[in-house]
Amino acid sequence: MSPNLNFIGQIRTPYNSIQECPSNIQFDGPVCDLDINEEYANEIRGLNEGDHILILYWLGRAEVSNGAASSLDENSPGAFALRTPIRPNPIGVAVLPIEEVNGKTLSVKGLDCLDKTELIDIKPVIYLETGFSKK
Amino acid sequence: MSPNLNFIGQIRTPYNSIQECPSNIQFDGPVCDLDINEEYANEIRGLNEGDHILILYWLGRAEVSNGAASSLDENSPGAFALRTPIRPNPIGVAVLPIEEVNGKTLSVKGLDCLDKTELIDIKPVIYLETGFSKK
Repeated sequence: MSPNLNFIGQIRTPYNSIQECPSNIQFDGPVCDLDINEEYANEIRGLNEGDHILILYWLGRAEVSNGAASSLDENSPGAFALRTPIRPNPIGVAVLPIEEVNGKTLSVKGLDCLDKTELIDIKPVIYLETGFSKK
Repeated sequence: MSPNLNFIGQIRTPYNSIQECPSNIQFDGPVCDLDINEEYANEIRGLNEGDHILILYWLGRAEVSNGAASSLDENSPGAFALRTPIRPNPIGVAVLPIEEVNGKTLSVKGLDCLDKTELIDIKPVIYLETGFSKK
């Protein structure tokens, strides 16, 4: 009942330690490369510079919580009310425009994860007009 | 190197077959319940009606592709340029406002997945002002 993930590539960022990582996406941050594994290289066909993509990645060096993240203080927000990487499934999500497509590499700016973070998925972003409310 | 996912709950929708499922999110669609497993119930603390959440779910009944989805036609878009559930990791993503919080159940409207779809993660949506460009 608990499925395995297939990593599809790696994210190259300038960050080699958690301390160096920014705590959030930086839209004018440094260029980061999404290097797609050879076996999935065909799957980026149709993605172009300027397209907005949703990126899923595995925050694998974060300690995996089994619900204990917020157990110390019963008034503090739970993991699902936070963006903390300490969550039952440490998956990060970012939405960014593609800066460049070069072979099987997509470049974006300002990801907040460690160098060599494993990629899980890339999806085109739709619903922007109707789906994202600006509160 | 390929990690396991921990399902955190189930999504209750009116759809019992793929044929019944809408092909996209319907913002005025029927109420769907995110039933959080008891062990993770504390993790929704801090989420409230009206909050926008990003929902990750496992499209488990979709055939898992290993890069072959678009191999028949070399001009067709790849899986990462499509929202198809037939992708290396069949994870669905939706962003919706919370309609109601009732115990360990969060209600939203208009999800596009089968009844009893497994939940992977819930995150608060941030960055709306700066991060989502309306092309």
